[in-house]
Parts: sequence; structure tokens; C-alpha cells
Amino acid sequence: MQFHHNGYVSGDPRVQPAAGTGIDRPAEIPDEVDVLIVGSGPAGMLLAAQMSQFPTVVTRIVEKRDGRLVLGQADGIQPRSVETFQAFGFAERIVAEAYNIGWMNFWGPDPENPQNIVRRSRTADYAYDISEFPHLIVNQARVLDYFAEAAAAGPGRIAPDYGVEFVGLIRHESGDHPLEVRLRYVAGERAGQERVVRAKYVAGCDGARSGVRDAIGRRHLGDVSAHAWGVMDVVVETDFPDWRIKCAINSEAGNILHIPREGGYLSRMYIDLGEVAADDDHRVRQTPIEQIIRHANEILHPYVLDVKDVAWHSVYEVGHRVTDRFDDIPDGSALAPRVFLTGDACHTHSAKAGQGMNVSMQDGFNLGWKLGSVLTGRSPESLLATYSAERQPVAQQLIDFDREWSTLMARKPEEISDPEDLAAYYLATAEFPSGFMTQYAPSAIVAGTARQELAAGFPLGKRFTSSPVVLASDGNVVHLGHHARADGRWRIYAFADAEGPRDDSALAAWARWIETADDSPVRRHTPDGLALDAVFDVKAVYQQSFEDIDVTAVPAVFRPRNGTLGVTDWEKVFAAGPSRWNDSDIFDERGLSRDGVVVVVRPDQYVAHVLSLTATEELAAFFAQHMAPAGR
Amino acid sequence: MQFHHNGYVSGDPRVQPAAGTGIDRPAEIPDEVDVLIVGSGPAGMLLAAQMSQFPTVVTRIVEKRDGRLVLGQADGIQPRSVETFQAFGFAERIVAEAYNIGWMNFWGPDPENPQNIVRRSRTADYAYDISEFPHLIVNQARVLDYFAEAAAAGPGRIAPDYGVEFVGLIRHESGDHPLEVRLRYVAGERAGQERVVRAKYVAGCDGARSGVRDAIGRRHLGDVSAHAWGVMDVVVETDFPDWRIKCAINSEAGNILHIPREGGYLSRMYIDLGEVAADDDHRVRQTPIEQIIRHANEILHPYVLDVKDVAWHSVYEVGHRVTDRFDDIPDGSALAPRVFLTGDACHTHSAKAGQGMNVSMQDGFNLGWKLGSVLTGRSPESLLATYSAERQPVAQQLIDFDREWSTLMARKPEEISDPEDLAAYYLATAEFPSGFMTQYAPSAIVAGTARQELAAGFPLGKRFTSSPVVLASDGNVVHLGHHARADGRWRIYAFADAEGPRDDSALAAWARWIETADDSPVRRHTPDGLALDAVFDVKAVYQQSFEDIDVTAVPAVFRPRNGTLGVTDWEKVFAAGPSRWNDSDIFDERGLSRDGVVVVVRPDQYVAHVLSLTATEELAAFFAQHMAPAGR
Repeated sequence: MQFHHNGYVSGDPRVQPAAGTGIDRPAEIPDEVDVLIVGSGPAGMLLAAQMSQFPTVVTRIVEKRDGRLVLGQADGIQPRSVETFQAFGFAERIVAEAYNIGWMNFWGPDPENPQNIVRRSRTADYAYDISEFPHLIVNQARVLDYFAEAAAAGPGRIAPDYGVEFVGLIRHESGDHPLEVRLRYVAGERAGQERVVRAKYVAGCDGARSGVRDAIGRRHLGDVSAHAWGVMDVVVETDFPDWRIKCAINSEAGNILHIPREGGYLSRMYIDLGEVAADDDHRVRQTPIEQIIRHANEILHPYVLDVKDVAWHSVYEVGHRVTDRFDDIPDGSALAPRVFLTGDACHTHSAKAGQGMNVSMQDGFNLGWKLGSVLTGRSPESLLATYSAERQPVAQQLIDFDREWSTLMARKPEEISDPEDLAAYYLATAEFPSGFMTQYAPSAIVAGTARQELAAGFPLGKRFTSSPVVLASDGNVVHLGHHARADGRWRIYAFADAEGPRDDSALAAWARWIETADDSPVRRHTPDGLALDAVFDVKAVYQQSFEDIDVTAVPAVFRPRNGTLGVTDWEKVFAAGPSRWNDSDIFDERGLSRDGVVVVVRPDQYVAHVLSLTATEELAAFFAQHMAPAGR
Repeated sequence: MQFHHNGYVSGDPRVQPAAGTGIDRPAEIPDEVDVLIVGSGPAGMLLAAQMSQFPTVVTRIVEKRDGRLVLGQADGIQPRSVETFQAFGFAERIVAEAYNIGWMNFWGPDPENPQNIVRRSRTADYAYDISEFPHLIVNQARVLDYFAEAAAAGPGRIAPDYGVEFVGLIRHESGDHPLEVRLRYVAGERAGQERVVRAKYVAGCDGARSGVRDAIGRRHLGDVSAHAWGVMDVVVETDFPDWRIKCAINSEAGNILHIPREGGYLSRMYIDLGEVAADDDHRVRQTPIEQIIRHANEILHPYVLDVKDVAWHSVYEVGHRVTDRFDDIPDGSALAPRVFLTGDACHTHSAKAGQGMNVSMQDGFNLGWKLGSVLTGRSPESLLATYSAERQPVAQQLIDFDREWSTLMARKPEEISDPEDLAAYYLATAEFPSGFMTQYAPSAIVAGTARQELAAGFPLGKRFTSSPVVLASDGNVVHLGHHARADGRWRIYAFADAEGPRDDSALAAWARWIETADDSPVRRHTPDGLALDAVFDVKAVYQQSFEDIDVTAVPAVFRPRNGTLGVTDWEKVFAAGPSRWNDSDIFDERGLSRDGVVVVVRPDQYVAHVLSLTATEELAAFFAQHMAPAGR
């Protein structure tokens, strides 16, 4: 966290100074906005927090509920989401209050006595094998609270407009604000009133029954399966010994996915309600909670649940649907998109793989910086077409994974030949539910050809995997990736050649180019009047120990002057070499060339390019294809 | 963090349900209060946060300033303080915004060219060698903010009454509220008005010029030395390469203690202003900031500071004073104390060892639970005499340490025979500035004779050193000590014999006694109507792996029912054995007997007793000497 460079900050440093539209932000939704976010779920709230980092953009977020979410909904948080929370500045707080999934246990019929269940296996959770972030359970309401805090603390000071419903929209062919959006107040003094707001862009984050999706004529394709599940958040007395461990329970009476929740007492249970008759017509959704609890007890036999409190419950039929495109442009059209769909508005599936909230947040993360780039003039509108192109395949993968997982979970005991196969599947596919398997295809913002062999551990199109390094100025061990906050900036990591901080090194030559050359992206795409690192955060990582690096003598691009005080930023230079507290070497951990390598990382933390230190033309060309000249 | 046992908690779980006086807490200070805290510095605010955990006690905290602290004051946070923050629930948040001291470098005159300074040595900071907590720098204002949050979020809902000054007090000989306290409003509409409040107890947390100290006739004993220091919080441009590392700088022109601050730009410098003439009459305190900056540049030669912003500065003469007693009772009197002094009100010294705020907070931590115990009827008034008896010697040690350290820091180069000796002293004494050297002498609340050999790593009278264990119910690795929150409760850790969870084990016999015996402290001292663990938090630690422990089958005292829902607490049973994520064994790490051992820990985290599992009579006798029978 860096602050005090605009003068002394006495209060919470997480609250950034208001800027742009964040200064005197009107309580009333303006008649014209740049971005209108519809819905304040995980995708919408992340998007609001991200847009708050672009304070010259007028962003509003409307939510038909009359206040914050109180109950229910998603609770599974994959490591990639915790990584994302870190970028938004609240990972440590949500980790402190969440349930950490350390284990997953599998229960099945006792072979000796099949009406009883027994523990068949224990599986250590995969999270810490895959990254430095845990696998958590915490209510969606708290995730939204933290994003709301980040949105309000950002320079744009964005807060949801509650009690406002989306009614419809029309895209006009011209005008600065071509989207005509009808809204209705559904709570408060103005309840029942309608009004029109003109917008440049609309993000439909309005859930499975998305009105935005309907308004742009997109269809949700897929099936509603014939299998029903009850879900309940309960506080109980029980003799079931794994009440505080995540379990898949398979018995003759049916299946339960059991997920302990934050706070040490509550658990969520997904209870198999069996096949739904073809003529059921959703009557299964009326199943009373007493019947669900009775069925849970049948499955858990010989253990007993004595339910003391039902915090929330619901019944649903498993559906797997994905929208064909996540924006409003017909295939093959050259028009730039104006309306986007995120989260449940474009992909719905079972809750049991614990994926929905996570994938939805990544939708928002993917879209936010692109809207910010276009609306601040950094990038052409065409950038926005990459949103649907990148996120629709991810949603399709999610549907496929979830269909397989929920089918496995819903089997009858006699269908299970190997009692270990569910555990095996769970571990074998760990990268997917961790959120780290997403790999974006080549495009204007992911290089098609690159020198991947110079940085084998930073695969193109996948999210940047962090490793510990030493901050050269103070000798503290920090995670390189955690320095990258969700501030809408690109990161260019210059991993140095072996020469170290010498004027005749390959890194020094690269630094001179990026600092002074006309085609340097820093010079070409950073508008005059902004800080040198306002668009590109350029960092150096040397191979030496921090003790051998004089940070006052590194190339000037690695010590830009910041803030209204115009003082040196001491946090651009890192050391990979060993020191008292650091036994990790990022060059080894990530397979980086000892001749140096440049790794370009997008604002949403995905690796966009890998180049040699001499490939300056290629670096310039990469940015030129999706960024506008800004003249500096 | 445990919650949901009183029903579903939708919002921030750090906000506990209001109770007692926290329900409808009046804005106005009542005419009669139980505890009046004077001053909202580190000791006073910690005390307020602690008293908020005793919501039946009427506690108010008055502060003459008209609002929160904005600038200046202390900034050094020792590991023991971070441990304390953990107990109050905000360690992870303050760590995220603080500067972490990884290193301390020592600079001295260049032997070749003595008018220039050179780096003489680097010393890795001791914090992580000593505990799991870091050594931080963060402004006192933020520490107070977090304690204010904890005080407001506790059941007592305590908030400071700003703009209220202490005028004087009289102790009457009788009455329920024998202290007659005069207060004056110094801000707001009522500025200038005086009023009288009657209190049972007063805590003087009102700083070096304490009015409470004067009112009870205590004298501050010691000297003001003849050495003056300037202190400034500055943002600069500089070529000094260690600007972001803590440094002791010794040059021909004088001495600097340089301490980087949170946020990556600001640093604090203590600049030696030299000997003060006997007839100076504090004129040195008028030294202008320009002169201090000029002097800093002379000391740093050949490096240059170009100061861009002075956030705060001051000049002071080093004084070392300690009050003879920290309460209002004459030596040898049998009266119970009613008025207490904490922090700078009873110990003042130089700022350069970074100790003041830390020791002050421990004053508050020591006093808070004792006031809570007496005022809830758990303990006799005599308990309060232990406050001064325990804290006065700690203050004396602090004065002695600081006098030595500040003398070493103020030497001239020619007085330094070994340039490494400052570094050597810094490391050799690490336990003291870490805050872990305090060892309370035997008293009613620290056993005089104990089976120390059964738990060598938990020295009697020292603070309980945590180690990782596995929470048996969910298989997660947790720090045993971090489960102990600052909630005013005693902890009784029953480390099991090797038998594990069997009915014929020594632990099972002990558990039966503590659950059922008439002389069991849990039965004798926990009032009827309160939860079984309201006064004593009894935890078991087995030697086995968590996989071999069925938490539904352990003795009932380790699975009490809690909250309005009356549901099992799943977080009383821990496992020391190896598992997938745990390679630590607390029995080995802390030298615990494999035949089992009982370790008693006070509400302020100090080890009070060590006993065998069969020494039940001794355990009963220990609590009987400082706790009242409550009848259960």
C-alpha cells in the first residue's frame, strides 16, 4: 500500500482521495452516464469497484433490491478469487472471517452394513498446492460488502443505487450516449416512477432472469435437467463427526454435498431430491424444509441432524445454460459492442462445484479495465469485442465441468464402481475449480507469437503466477504479483539479465529505450500531464540479492516521481537473490531466462506477452495494436 | 472468529451483538460510572476496547482533544503489540498498511574520509526469529482508530467522549462510587462548563503531564537529561540509498535514528541536537524546523535530503522518569486501589527505542481484565493491587533499557571503539524491544510454585507463546494462542497424555473432575445462568493427528453448548500430531510433558500456572485465592 506522496494521510489509507466524478458525486442518477451497471451481484460489484479506479468515467450501478444482500446465495471462494480480493485490497480481511477448506472427505455406504454411511476417504484440499491463496467459504453478502467498500473508497466514490429496476433498453444508431435505458424505482419515496437514462455502455449483471439479456435479444441455451436439489444453511446439533469438514456423502437414500461455513457453527447442505418427473412443472420447488431435513437425516443415517436454526433454504433443479454471445453484436458484425452480459445473466449451472460467484467476478474483472481504457481514450472501441470472445469459452468450460461434477455427485451407490473415483476426480481437476485454468486465446491483447521459452512459468493467456521477491529499497520479502493492484494499469516486468544494475547491461539498454524512444509504449500511450507510470507500471527484477542493488542508481524509469509532491517511488525495483528472509528465487520458480525477459501483464492480471530484452519493436507493436497514441 | 450461534449474522462478524450498557448507551456521560478512563492514547483506548467486553460495567472514556488523533506521536509497534492486536481482532488489517522492519542498518564515518558516512553493517531484524509477529511502524493515530473500532464493536459499544478534560478528583471514604471527579467541557456547545461525575474507578491514561497523577499526589521521579533531539516526519527527495531502511547513523556532525514509515514515502528522523546548556531553560524546544533539516543534512553528508513535505515535527529533551507507584494507595496500606496510572502518566523516556506506545498498551491490557473481574463480582478488590505491583517494575526496566540505548545512540564517533557494538546490542537485547521479556513475579495470579519442568516452553509469568496446532474438527492448522481473544476470559489448556481420547486416560479423568467436581474452578467460579465457558475457556490438545480424534466423543467439557441456540462449540479440541498441512508439534516446540500438563493463561495472555493433570486440588486452590465463589 503506497500513500503520503500527495501529503500526509492520517486516516484509513484504503480510502483514496476522491477525483473526477467522485468529487461531489450526485445522489441522483444523472440523465447521461458512461457506464450503467445493472445488478449488484459479484460481477456487478467487482465492476463497480474497478470503475471507481477510472474516476473520469461516469459510472452508476442500479440494483432492484432495496439495500445490501442479507442472506443466501453463493459461498464458495476459489483461490483465484482470493487473489482478486488481494488486488482489490481486502483479501486479509475476508480470509480472517471465512471458513478455510483444508480437507474434503468422502462418505459412502458401509459395505458391511449398507444402510449406514462410513467415511471412505480424506482428501487434502488442493488450494495451497496450487497457489499462495486459500480455498474459502464465506457468504456472498460479505464479498459484496467488501467490493462495496472498495468501490466507495476508490477515487470514483461509487455506491449502488438501490431500489432501481431495469425495465428495458434501446440502442440508437448514433449519438454520444446511444443507449436509451428505462429504469423504474421500486423502493422508497419514488417507488413506481419510471425514468430514462442515456448511457454509452450497459453491463447486464442482473442474474439468471436477466432483463438486459432479454432486451438485447440474446437467448440462454441449454437444458434444465430432471434432477432437483434442496439447499439449506443450518445450525444443528449432530453426532456426525465431519460436521466441520467439507464432505461428499453418497448413501442409499441419496446424496449430500456438505459445506461448513464461516463462524464455526453454520453449515450449508446440498441435498439430493432425486429425479424430477417430466410433468412436475417445477412443483419440486415447493418441497417444504421439513421434508428436506428429513431426507438429509435419511442420507446421513446412522448420524442424526437436530436442526436448531435454518438461516436460509431453497430448492432448485439443475440447469446448464450458456448464452451464445456475451454482448449485443451479431456474429460477423463490425459494430463495437455497447451492452455486455456477465455472471448468471449468461451462464447458469448447479451450485455444487462452488464456481458461479467466482467465474462471475472474473467476468467483471475482464470487462472493467476494458471499459476504463476505452472511456479514457487509451484504447479504441474494438477492444470491447474481446470481452465476449474471451469470457464465453470460459463459461462453456464451466458448464462442461459442472455437468460432469454434478452428474458424478448425483450417482446412486450401485453406479459407483470405484469409491475413490470422486476423490480422484476432485484432485485431478484441481486447477479448474481453483480458477487458474483459464487461458485466453491470442488476440489484440494476448500475443500470438511470443518467446514463451524465456518464461516457461508465465504461460501466455493465463493469469500471472506470483512468487516471493525482495523489495530492493527495504529488504522486505513481498509477493511480486501482490504489488499489482486492480488499478486498471498494465504491468511490464523487466526481469534483468545477469549483469545486475550496470550501465552496459541488457536491462539498462531496454530501460533507456522504454524511457526515451519515440515508439516506447510508456511515451507513446501515456498522456501528457499524467504520471510516468499512470498507464504502465514498469518494474525491474534483478537476479542479485537486494544488498547488491543501489536503488538510487538504477535506470530512471524504475524510480519515477509520483504524486503532488513529485517524490521518488521506491517500490519499482525487486531482487530475486537470496537474503536473510528470502529463500525463493523467482527466476528458478518461474523458469525465467538468465539473459533476462520482459513479461507483460494485463490489468486483470493475465499474461499478455513474453519477449526478450532486445525485442523492443515487438513490444511497441503489441501495444500499438490495441492502444491509441497519446503523445508525450 | 466464531459466530452464527445466536442466529445468522449477515454483516461484519467483528461487530458483536450489543449487551448490557451497550444497549441504548447514552450519549451523555452518566452521573455515576463504574470506570472512568481519562485520556484516549494507546493505554486508554486499549482499556476501552477491553472494557467493552464487560458490557455490564458502565465505562466511559474522556479525551480533552475534540476528536481523533490526527498526527504525530509514536509509531513503533513491537511484535508483542501485534500479538495483542491479534487478540483484539485487527492484526491482519494493521499489518497490511504498516511498514515492516526487515532490517536495521548502521552507518558511521568513513574511516578513509571521516566527513562522509558509509554503511558499516546490516542487521536482519529479530522479529520473526522471536515470534510469528512482525515488527512494524505505523502511526499511533491508526492504532487508536483500530482500538476505537474494537471498543465500538464490542458488546459495551464504548466510544470516547471527546472535548472533555479532567480537572480533579477526590476519593471519599465510603459510598458505592467513592471517586468524585470534576470534568470540564473544552469543545463544542458546552465548552467551559464543568460537572461532577462519581466513579468507582479512574484510570489515568492522560499522558506525561497527567492531571490524574497530580490529583492523587503521585510524583514522577527521574531526570531530564541534557540531550536534545529533533523529530520530524518528512517526505523527501534524496540520494541516501537506505531511505527505506531503519538506520542508526553516527557521524562527526551528530546522530540520526532513521525510521521509514508506512506508505512507502514518509520517514521519521530523530536528529541529535546535542548537549543542552544548564541554563537553556527549554529554549532548545524552539529550534526551527529549517535548522533541524540543515543539521540532518550535515549528519548525512555526502548524501542530501531535499525535504518536500514536513508532516509533523517536534523537539524534546530526553527525560527518564517513572512514578513510584501506579495507583493511589500508600505503600503498606490495606486499602484497595481506586485510581490507576498507565502509559506516559507513569513512565516517560526517549522515543528512540520505539517502546512507549507498546508498554503503555500492555499497561491497559494488564488493568482491563482486572477491573472487569472485580466489577462483575468474579474477583475481590484485592486483585487490583496487582496492577501496580506488576507494571511498575516493567516501567523501571523500560527506563533502564532506554537510558542505555539512547546513551549508546548519542555517542560521538570517537567514543565508539567497536563499530559493531551498537548492532550487537540491538540483537542481544531483542527480546526486550520485542515486548516478550516481561515476566510477572509470583502473586495471587501467578503461581509461586509450579511444575515448570512439565512445560519448559511456557515460563510462568511470561506471555503464552503460541505454536501451530490442528483444529480437530476441521483439520485446519491454526495458532493455538490466536484462538485466545481479548475477551476477559481465563484459558485452561489441558495438554493430553499419550493415551489420546480414551475414557481411561489421565486427560479424561481430569476432564471429569473439571466438569463435575464441587471444587472445579469452572463450577465454583462460573455464575449460574452464564455459558459453561463464560469465565474459563477450557481447551484440550491431544498428541495424536486430528484424523485419529472423533470430536463428538471427547469429554463433554471440551464441547460445551453455546449461544442462544445452545449448539456445540467445535473449536475446543486441537491435535498436535502431524497431518498434511502441519509439520509442527507443540509438545516438542514448547517442551511439554508427554504425560500431559495443564497450563493456565490469564486474560492478558500471561502464563499463570503449570500443573500436572492430577494436580486438581492445586488448580482449585490457585483460582480460589483470587476468585469469588459464584455457585453453579
